[in-house]
Amino acid sequence: MIQKNKEEKFVSNRGFTENLSRSTAFGSDLAPFFEPKSIAIIGAIKSLWFGGLVTLNNLKNLGYKGQVYLVNPSYPEVEGIKVYPNIKEVPDEVDLAVIITSARAVPGIVRDCVEKGVKGAVIVADGFAERDEEGAKLQQEIVNISKQTGIRLLGPNTIGVVNPYSGVITTPYPLGYKSIRKGHVALAAQTGIIGAQAFPFEELQYGVSKICDFSNKCDVNETDLLEYLEDDPDTKVIALHIEDIRDGARFLKVAKRVVKKKPILIYKPGRTSESKKALASHTGSIAGNQRIYESAFRQTGLIQVNSFSELLQIAKAFGYQPLPKGNRLGIVTITGGAGIMAIDTAVEWGLVLGKLSDESNEKLFRIHATMVGNPSDIGPAMPTLQDPITPYKKAIEVFYQDPNVDCLLITFYAFPGVTPELYVNMLKEVRGPVEKPAAIWIYGPSNESINKIYKALEAADYPAYLDIEMAVKALGAMYQYTQIKSKLGA
Amino acid sequence: MIQKNKEEKFVSNRGFTENLSRSTAFGSDLAPFFEPKSIAIIGAIKSLWFGGLVTLNNLKNLGYKGQVYLVNPSYPEVEGIKVYPNIKEVPDEVDLAVIITSARAVPGIVRDCVEKGVKGAVIVADGFAERDEEGAKLQQEIVNISKQTGIRLLGPNTIGVVNPYSGVITTPYPLGYKSIRKGHVALAAQTGIIGAQAFPFEELQYGVSKICDFSNKCDVNETDLLEYLEDDPDTKVIALHIEDIRDGARFLKVAKRVVKKKPILIYKPGRTSESKKALASHTGSIAGNQRIYESAFRQTGLIQVNSFSELLQIAKAFGYQPLPKGNRLGIVTITGGAGIMAIDTAVEWGLVLGKLSDESNEKLFRIHATMVGNPSDIGPAMPTLQDPITPYKKAIEVFYQDPNVDCLLITFYAFPGVTPELYVNMLKEVRGPVEKPAAIWIYGPSNESINKIYKALEAADYPAYLDIEMAVKALGAMYQYTQIKSKLGA
Repeated sequence: MIQKNKEEKFVSNRGFTENLSRSTAFGSDLAPFFEPKSIAIIGAIKSLWFGGLVTLNNLKNLGYKGQVYLVNPSYPEVEGIKVYPNIKEVPDEVDLAVIITSARAVPGIVRDCVEKGVKGAVIVADGFAERDEEGAKLQQEIVNISKQTGIRLLGPNTIGVVNPYSGVITTPYPLGYKSIRKGHVALAAQTGIIGAQAFPFEELQYGVSKICDFSNKCDVNETDLLEYLEDDPDTKVIALHIEDIRDGARFLKVAKRVVKKKPILIYKPGRTSESKKALASHTGSIAGNQRIYESAFRQTGLIQVNSFSELLQIAKAFGYQPLPKGNRLGIVTITGGAGIMAIDTAVEWGLVLGKLSDESNEKLFRIHATMVGNPSDIGPAMPTLQDPITPYKKAIEVFYQDPNVDCLLITFYAFPGVTPELYVNMLKEVRGPVEKPAAIWIYGPSNESINKIYKALEAADYPAYLDIEMAVKALGAMYQYTQIKSKLGA
Repeated sequence: MIQKNKEEKFVSNRGFTENLSRSTAFGSDLAPFFEPKSIAIIGAIKSLWFGGLVTLNNLKNLGYKGQVYLVNPSYPEVEGIKVYPNIKEVPDEVDLAVIITSARAVPGIVRDCVEKGVKGAVIVADGFAERDEEGAKLQQEIVNISKQTGIRLLGPNTIGVVNPYSGVITTPYPLGYKSIRKGHVALAAQTGIIGAQAFPFEELQYGVSKICDFSNKCDVNETDLLEYLEDDPDTKVIALHIEDIRDGARFLKVAKRVVKKKPILIYKPGRTSESKKALASHTGSIAGNQRIYESAFRQTGLIQVNSFSELLQIAKAFGYQPLPKGNRLGIVTITGGAGIMAIDTAVEWGLVLGKLSDESNEKLFRIHATMVGNPSDIGPAMPTLQDPITPYKKAIEVFYQDPNVDCLLITFYAFPGVTPELYVNMLKEVRGPVEKPAAIWIYGPSNESINKIYKALEAADYPAYLDIEMAVKALGAMYQYTQIKSKLGA
C-alpha cells in the first residue's frame, strides 16, 4: 500500500510515520472520519448558505466537542474566528480535514494535510472524474498521494459524513434544524441526497448511527465502511446505495462476514441501459451487469430494495424493532380496504397471513363481532362504540399474544383531535410477552396530525409509514433477514 | 328493470312514476347523488364524531346550497334543528337520502324513501353482505326494492359521495378542514379511504371533481359512474379502485367508449390468493382471475396502477397538465444521484431520455459548463453562484423549448428559507411555447418547507411529489394515455 515515489518529498516525517502506522495497524478504519478529535475546514468559508462557516455552525448545533480550525489564505478571520493561512500553521494536531475548494487546489492541500499529519480528508470539492479528463487526472493525483502516504480520502464531490454520537457533521449546507437523533441506522450512499440537508431527520425523528456519502469514492468505499460498521456498537442495520462497486471480490467477502452480525440493505440503480449511461457522468461509475450484481448480492445475503425511499424507510424498522421469528403477518386495521391492499405486497415480500388461534378469535369476538379474523377490521365497530380507542388496543394485544402471528401491521387513523400519546401509549401498554416487530401505517385528513403521530411513534421506536405498502415491505425485509441469518448459521 | 311484484304496495304513485321515468329517461344517471337539490339525513344524528350532525356540518362547510332535512323518530330536534320522525313527513321534495341506521332498519327506510319520491340513497349503514348471511338477505331485500322501483342505492357500507362543485358531501366523519378544491380528478373506490376524512384534500390542494365510495355496490357500480362521468365537464380523469367488477361485459363496453374521451386509471388488489380471500369478507367481492382482468383492462385501454398511492398520485397529473406528444423525458435536477434513480423507473414506465438539441446544450453550457446534457444537473453549479435560482429557471426554460423533449421531471430542493412563490413563479414564467407536462419532486430538510412548496405548486396546477419515482410514473402514465388515444383514433 505504501509506496515511495516522487510524491514523498511532500510528506513530512511525522505525517508519513503516523500514516504508515495507522494504515497497517487499522486497515480501513474510518475512525478519523466519524470520531475525529479535531477538524480543519479548508477553503470557501464566508458564505452563509454554502461552505465552511455553515459546516462550523452545523458542528456547533450537533454538539461537536472537539477543536475546529478554519483555513484560508485570503483572510485572517471570519465572524471573529481566526482563520489560518495554511493547515500547517494550525498549532494543534488535526485528525480530519474538510476541503471545500476548486478541484485544482485539492492536490496541494492534500499534500499539506499529509505534512500536517491529518488522518482523513473529506473532499467536498467537485470537478474531478465526474466532470472531465482534467478532473480525472486530478483525481488520480490525489489517489496517488493517498496510496503513497496512507491519508484516507472521502469523495471527491461529497458532502461527507455525519455521526450524531460524536456530533461530527461535515455538511456544508444549512439544515434549518439543530439535531439528528442518535439511532441505529447507518446510511451510506453515492449521492448527496443521503445528507442531513436533504431529509427531515430531526422532524421525523429518524434515528441515525452514521451517514456517509462516498460519491466519487476515489479512496474510501463501501467495503471500508462495512468493515468500520461491522463492530460499531451504535449500528444495527446498514443501508447502502451504490452506483457501482470498485472491488467486487473484497466487497462480497466482507459483506458476507458482516451480514452474519447486521442486516445490509442495498439499492443499486442501473436496471436500464439509459440509467447506466447517466451513471457514468454522475460519479464516473461503470454500472456493470445488473443481473450479475443482483445474483451476487442475493448469494451474499444482502437484502435488495428497489428505490431510495425503500432504502431509508425499510432500514428504520430494523433499527427500532426485533426480528420476526417467522413470516406470519397479523393485520389490525381500521380500514378493511387498505388492509386488503397490503396483503398483495405482503405476499410478494415473502409474508403470509397468520391464522389466528380459536382463543384469539374468541377474544376478538368479545370486543366486537365484526372484528374476528386476520385482518381484524375495527372500522365497522367504530361508530357503535363510545370509545374508539379501546377496541384498537384490545385487538392489538390479541395479535401480540397470538402464537400464530410473527409480525404486525397496524393502521392508525389520525382523526381530527387525536393526540399522538394516545397511540404511542397504547402500543407500549399492549406490547406482547413475545417480541414481535410492528410497522404502523398512518393516514387521515390532516398532514399536521399525521406528522405529529408519526414523530411520536418514531421517537418511541415504532416505525411509522405514510404508505401502507412500505410498512409491509419493511416487515417482509425483516423476515428475509431472519431467513438469511438462519441460512448462514448466524 | 322495473318489475311489479309484492313490493309494489310500498310504492306511492308519485314515487313510482317519477322513478319509472327517471329510470328509463336517465339510465344510470347519478345526478341525484352528485347534484341533489335537497338531502335528508336519516338515523344516527346526535354524535359529534360520527353520523348525521357531522354530515350536516360537512355540508355547511363545503357550501351546499340545497335544503337538508334531519330524520329520526326518537327526538323532535337536535342543536335547535327540527328533526322529522319519518322522511314522509318532510314537507318538500327530497332528491337524496343518507341512511345511517342499523342494517335491519334499512329496507323499511328505503321503502319510505320510495314513497317519498327520493331518487337516490347513500346507505352508510353496514352489516350487509360483507357481514353474514342475515346481512346478505337484507342486502338482497333492498336490491329488490331498487329493481322494482328504480330508486338508486349507493353502498351499503359506504361513506358516499363528494362533489366540491355542488358542495355535496355525505361523509359522516369530521374532517378537521372546511373545503375541497374544485379540480378535475374523479376518485372512486370500493373503500372508505377514498373519502374526505381519510386524506388531506384541503391541505394538499388536491383538485377533485367527484368522489364516490361504492363499497358493497348493491346497485350503483363502477360502470354507472363511468357513464355519469363520461360527460361530466368537471372531470378530466377517472381514478378507479375496484375489488371486483359486477358486470364485466358492460363495464368493458362502457370503459372502451369513455377512454376515448378521458383517461381511466384502475387499481385492483387481488394479485395473490391471500388477498382474494380477504376481499370476500370486506365487501363480499369475488376477486376473479387477476390475469384475465389485467388482460381485459389492457385491451380496453385502461391504465393499470399497482397501489392506492399510485392511483391518487398519478391521477392528479392528468388533472393539471397537458398530455405529452411523445415519450422523451427531460430531467432538470439539483441532485445528480436522484436524477439517475428516476431513469430506471422512467424507462420501466415507457419513457426514454430525450437527446437535447445542440442549441439547447449550448444554452446550458452558457449557464454553467456542468449543466450540459439530460439529465441537466444544477447541483455542481450551485455553490459557485450568487443566485441559486437563476440557473434552475434558465435550464427549465431550455427543456420546455427543446423540440426533443416531450415531458419534464424537475426536482426542487426545499432549502431552508426558500419561499414557495419563488418556485411557482419560475415555472409559470418559463413555461414553453409547446405544451408539455411537468412533474415536480420536492425534497429537503424540513417537512414544513416541503409542504408549503407542495401546496403552492398543486394550487398552481403543477403536480408535486415526495417520491421521485412517483413523479416519473405519472409522466409515464400520461404517455401511455397518449398512445391509447392514438390507437383508438380518439
